Amino acid sequence: MKFATLADDSLDGRLVVVSRDAQRAVAVPHVAPSLLDALQRWDAVQVPLQAAYDALNAGTLSEAFAFDPNACAAPLPRSPQWLDGSAFLNHGRLMDQAFGMPPIPDFDTIPVMYQGASDDFLGPTQDVPLPSEADGIDFEGEFGVVVGPVPMAATPAQALACVRLLVQINDWSLRTLGPREMRAGFGFLQAKPSTAFAPLAVTPDELGDAWRDGRLHLRLQVQWNGQRFGEPHGGEMNFGFGELLAHAARTRRLTAGCIVGSGTVSNVSRAAGSACIAERRVIEKIDQGEIRTGFMRFGDRVRMQASFDDGRPGPFGVIDQQVIAAR
Amino acid sequence: MKFATLADDSLDGRLVVVSRDAQRAVAVPHVAPSLLDALQRWDAVQVPLQAAYDALNAGTLSEAFAFDPNACAAPLPRSPQWLDGSAFLNHGRLMDQAFGMPPIPDFDTIPVMYQGASDDFLGPTQDVPLPSEADGIDFEGEFGVVVGPVPMAATPAQALACVRLLVQINDWSLRTLGPREMRAGFGFLQAKPSTAFAPLAVTPDELGDAWRDGRLHLRLQVQWNGQRFGEPHGGEMNFGFGELLAHAARTRRLTAGCIVGSGTVSNVSRAAGSACIAERRVIEKIDQGEIRTGFMRFGDRVRMQASFDDGRPGPFGVIDQQVIAAR
Repeated sequence: MKFATLADDSLDGRLVVVSRDAQRAVAVPHVAPSLLDALQRWDAVQVPLQAAYDALNAGTLSEAFAFDPNACAAPLPRSPQWLDGSAFLNHGRLMDQAFGMPPIPDFDTIPVMYQGASDDFLGPTQDVPLPSEADGIDFEGEFGVVVGPVPMAATPAQALACVRLLVQINDWSLRTLGPREMRAGFGFLQAKPSTAFAPLAVTPDELGDAWRDGRLHLRLQVQWNGQRFGEPHGGEMNFGFGELLAHAARTRRLTAGCIVGSGTVSNVSRAAGSACIAERRVIEKIDQGEIRTGFMRFGDRVRMQASFDDGRPGPFGVIDQQVIAAR
Repeated sequence: MKFATLADDSLDGRLVVVSRDAQRAVAVPHVAPSLLDALQRWDAVQVPLQAAYDALNAGTLSEAFAFDPNACAAPLPRSPQWLDGSAFLNHGRLMDQAFGMPPIPDFDTIPVMYQGASDDFLGPTQDVPLPSEADGIDFEGEFGVVVGPVPMAATPAQALACVRLLVQINDWSLRTLGPREMRAGFGFLQAKPSTAFAPLAVTPDELGDAWRDGRLHLRLQVQWNGQRFGEPHGGEMNFGFGELLAHAARTRRLTAGCIVGSGTVSNVSRAAGSACIAERRVIEKIDQGEIRTGFMRFGDRVRMQASFDDGRPGPFGVIDQQVIAAR
């Protein structure tokens, strides 16, 4: 199934079921007004949602309408928690060099993860208001999972079984502010403004065998101002989402609708390019001896779209956002 | 005004207005079903809430009932964000020594703050289920503020004007897990299970001149298993809540209902005792050469209650919780 959320006056927006080809949508207020509500009552709503999805795909719903990604909020405009790992170790090791930080202890064996704000997510084509170009404005292309309730101390296998939906994420970052926050040890706060999401959250079956081992085996095609920036592959994730979720749930239960992210998709092969500017910059420094690429300016755009290994577009739709000066 | 939330089947619980003497309460479903809802529509609900509070205090409400703190959830069982500072520098400097960390850069001039989970708060007398005594179970007595909408890049004065309610907090911590998370730089996650709150959230006027300079000039009386542990004074906060809120809002807007905490209340004078075990332990090490106090065991209780300088009890009611083994 594919779900999107149309922006309205409410905090959780209006849930729509979207056809497999992302051309048609239907509201399902009699089943669940919002995606968060559906996730909180998943066992009760799964069958009627599947029925709506099947009828939509069969073209038999007279109340269906054209799906407009520009009318979308994030699939969950707010969620109970947003926890972001750094599960592509290639990225993490490069970022330690970029930030001038010593290597993180146990980085290869224990996931690192920060708690982000989850009350104010951005939709796929919403402008990104930020206070200053001097903060080092950067995108971060990621994949993520949305879970049902995960009990405290769940194992990776138990936690993985709680995954309800898969999502595609742009975790906006302010690189000038990150190193100080890392050194203070309290984690990212000012360095992480509102996170953005592709329009469609999808059940894992929509990926077929591209969802396996708790990983999304998709490429993430990233363009900055229309220029190719990279297309790293999600299958290279060093920790799977089962491990990330178990790490998150070690001393707390996760409630329905919590989102856990992979961290920036990143491949060892330089040919894959990057899914964030900071990583490209440190690669330039290492490979060419100097940083050549600046961070984003107001008016810049970033576009992100997943793709299957056979070249078909991924199931999440497109993130296409512009950075603007706040106010 | 004083507010509490009675636990029910909903995520936000049921708002009640509580009398100044905390003896009587009244539900106000015609005004706002939950405290979060009231905060989101503050301008529209302030007058009818004040009318209910005044009538309750005057004893003229036939529908009033006895207020039972044991029936309370946290005033906000979930909130949009929970951000916790470390604004008592005495505590922070001691904790650096306790964790064997180098001093945090700019610690005296820029607040440190972590983002905590805000989807699953504990009520004032709820048991605290945790997975292992080996994690170094500790309490942290704090004060906090609840805000209305704070715009991105607000000044401290602008942000302080957005404070709607004051709260008293027990920020449960797992000390064995904290140092590794600090060294990784991504901030506290496993080290911070669900946070607990005293039953009453109050408007700042309830404190009289004990709310000034963006600080709560109250003592926090802490007892562990019935023994006095400390009574540090909140007026010694090195950053006021205006500064903490402006720090939090530097690159994001805060939505109505966000909570910002002071960090562990801590005084330079050793006579004040401590509001967390980790601080007492490092003081023992410094002053007596060895750590004598262990962390909490399952079955242990902690009690926290604020008091005015003249000895009157503070306005928040009592936190009195027991730690238990999860499951």
